[in-house]
Amino acid sequence: MQASLGIGMLGLGTVGSAVAARLIGEWEMLGARAGVTPVLRRVAVRDLTRTRDVDLRNVELTSDAQALVDDPAVDIVVEVMGGVEPARSLISRALQRGKTVVTANKAVIAESGPALAGLAASHGAGLWFEAAVGGGLPIVALLRASLGADVVRGVDSIVNATTNIMLTRMREEGVRFETAVAEAQRRGFAEADPSSDVDGWDAAYKLVIMSWLAFGVHVEPEAVDRRGIRDVRLHDLAYTGQLGYSVKLVAHAERAVRSGAVHLRVRPTAVPADHPLYAVDDSDNAVIISSDLADTVILSGLGGGGASTASAVVSDVVQAARTRGCPPAAPLTAEPVLLSDEDVEVAGYLRLIVDPSGEAQAAAVQMLEDRGVPVTAAFDKPPLDGPFPQLLLLTGAAPRAVHDRALETLDTLPVVREIACAMDRIESAA
Amino acid sequence: MQASLGIGMLGLGTVGSAVAARLIGEWEMLGARAGVTPVLRRVAVRDLTRTRDVDLRNVELTSDAQALVDDPAVDIVVEVMGGVEPARSLISRALQRGKTVVTANKAVIAESGPALAGLAASHGAGLWFEAAVGGGLPIVALLRASLGADVVRGVDSIVNATTNIMLTRMREEGVRFETAVAEAQRRGFAEADPSSDVDGWDAAYKLVIMSWLAFGVHVEPEAVDRRGIRDVRLHDLAYTGQLGYSVKLVAHAERAVRSGAVHLRVRPTAVPADHPLYAVDDSDNAVIISSDLADTVILSGLGGGGASTASAVVSDVVQAARTRGCPPAAPLTAEPVLLSDEDVEVAGYLRLIVDPSGEAQAAAVQMLEDRGVPVTAAFDKPPLDGPFPQLLLLTGAAPRAVHDRALETLDTLPVVREIACAMDRIESAA
Repeated sequence: MQASLGIGMLGLGTVGSAVAARLIGEWEMLGARAGVTPVLRRVAVRDLTRTRDVDLRNVELTSDAQALVDDPAVDIVVEVMGGVEPARSLISRALQRGKTVVTANKAVIAESGPALAGLAASHGAGLWFEAAVGGGLPIVALLRASLGADVVRGVDSIVNATTNIMLTRMREEGVRFETAVAEAQRRGFAEADPSSDVDGWDAAYKLVIMSWLAFGVHVEPEAVDRRGIRDVRLHDLAYTGQLGYSVKLVAHAERAVRSGAVHLRVRPTAVPADHPLYAVDDSDNAVIISSDLADTVILSGLGGGGASTASAVVSDVVQAARTRGCPPAAPLTAEPVLLSDEDVEVAGYLRLIVDPSGEAQAAAVQMLEDRGVPVTAAFDKPPLDGPFPQLLLLTGAAPRAVHDRALETLDTLPVVREIACAMDRIESAA
Repeated sequence: MQASLGIGMLGLGTVGSAVAARLIGEWEMLGARAGVTPVLRRVAVRDLTRTRDVDLRNVELTSDAQALVDDPAVDIVVEVMGGVEPARSLISRALQRGKTVVTANKAVIAESGPALAGLAASHGAGLWFEAAVGGGLPIVALLRASLGADVVRGVDSIVNATTNIMLTRMREEGVRFETAVAEAQRRGFAEADPSSDVDGWDAAYKLVIMSWLAFGVHVEPEAVDRRGIRDVRLHDLAYTGQLGYSVKLVAHAERAVRSGAVHLRVRPTAVPADHPLYAVDDSDNAVIISSDLADTVILSGLGGGGASTASAVVSDVVQAARTRGCPPAAPLTAEPVLLSDEDVEVAGYLRLIVDPSGEAQAAAVQMLEDRGVPVTAAFDKPPLDGPFPQLLLLTGAAPRAVHDRALETLDTLPVVREIACAMDRIESAA
């Protein structure tokens, strides 16, 4: 009979239930692949009395998470409870006891990944977190192992299903923000409090993890240039749509070749039709990695939900079991130097409310170009709500700081009554 | 000073030169990632006198490949010479000496992967072959490790750059087969003898490797239902284009959930506009994996060329170096049961040369439907070269055998003068 390996799991929500179902239902297949049979021995839950969808007759439920971590019968700790504490302390405790940890916790890895990976290395334990980014899409493995020969230049991605579902519905059906949030909640993607998703924190955590693995530097989540989608107006989804763009919450990271300085941002971004992110709709995720040898690698598909996330968790368990003697190395971690706004190039989409004099377009374009912001297209549009006409402008690549200063000046132009929207834009390759 | 690991390489063509350049030029970065510095010590070449693009001043060139494999200073053998022999014998020899092998050789892995993996396992050595499929796209890692929790249902892919370049040029610019081959050769994708690409062998090798990893069975390359692109006519690229399809050399594998029987085919296939393979043009590759937990995972991007393939080879070297004590397990390998043509469902595109009586469409549709082949669309078209009009038919899903029998009967219909084209088709999801 093949040897077995004890699994203890923290949490039994949507992901935990799917993990338990796979470990219990496919133990033979998983054992053949791992060379040792992973056996789910204990699960720590908050409420021992709740009924569960999964048959746990040979699994001990406990409310004592610390005792589970300490249990000598538990070789691998699977953390799928979510939230920062007590998850982080329990992960630390397990690693300090030399136990391998598999976690789906993006907040903990984004904030404390390097410290935990160091702890794992010093105790000969493994720290696995494929499920923290992109559900079943192997983005962590791609960056941590498969691009091990490459110098990564940049990451462009859609990694938050809630906002992508919302933006898709808002664009395609014209539903309001509140209705779109409710749909994402009903489908199990958004939390009761959706702010981590709609304010861009969830995407920022995932971007921090990707950048850590891609560039070997650890950027604090607070240092990400982050804007959520609360201010995205239906009008701008429609206008950018007419111009051939789709608005996405794009998580972008880049590294300057010479200085090694990095820039991370999460912002609503107008994506052109010829870009691989354009057609990534609804709950799909996609990550585009640019690097010097592989050139372009794109991973896309279902990026979340219980089953997809369980795919990543359980494949980590299988790999951890198979390579117990060789835990994965801690990713390189240096202090980041952040690119200045003077060095980060962006293009933009602007919607202005202007005076009906007919002179606004010429004045605005002149002013922007005088201040170093190229204007690649300008469109006069009729008034929306009030009496004043509108002006849409597409600006070309210029440093963020140049853009920002020009916008401040634009706001003081007599013909400009209001800057109704200023959004990042990816330029079409055509 | 960090320990070092000796690398010996067999072959110094396009891929080998790119591998050497990366190992020599980025030894410090690679060493930091691997935890041990990989040092290129010896390279076996056929012609010692040829000038090389890469600076090999600290590397010993030799024409004795066996001696390189046997050299105690060589810990990892990198095989990038191509061809079946002597590559396969040299790989065996290295594995028998307990040396880890990294290879880009799809023909050897497709034909002898299970035997070589078994040899590796019995000698405690590792066998790595990420570069054998999709260049820098980590398709092997996806199937071998990242989907370790999943039951894979199917693979749909474009994995041959030469034919994809050719079909793209033929469709977009109407260039002839011979011109398209010449362009793919000029760009370094097609060999002087392009038959392995255009006859579908290259794609079949890659499909055999993917199916081995995905399904745990080893299908002989000869058992793949394989058709190349020699018979694809410009007319059919144009007609399918008008109907919203793009013709691709699609490598497809599927596994029946109940019986576990598998089916592998490489065929020119009309792909609809809403399918992820539709827009994969020119030298790009894409692989779509369907599995029970992760649902859909798509890998796409640059799938070949020297740099991209070197990315895969050198990342295998880094991983092999880092996990020397834990070589990857041999993938599961069972004897395959092949699905019968009665159980493989396909849809089709047909172009018939018919009598000008005006009765051909009704007669052909009636006959096909009587024999169990649904017809989803029919279009009369004017004559092309000769005096006779044409009839285009889109057939819906029916078993291959039912399709084949119906085509035989169709050929005997008095109103049908010739079946000018019968091609597989993927149905639109819309």
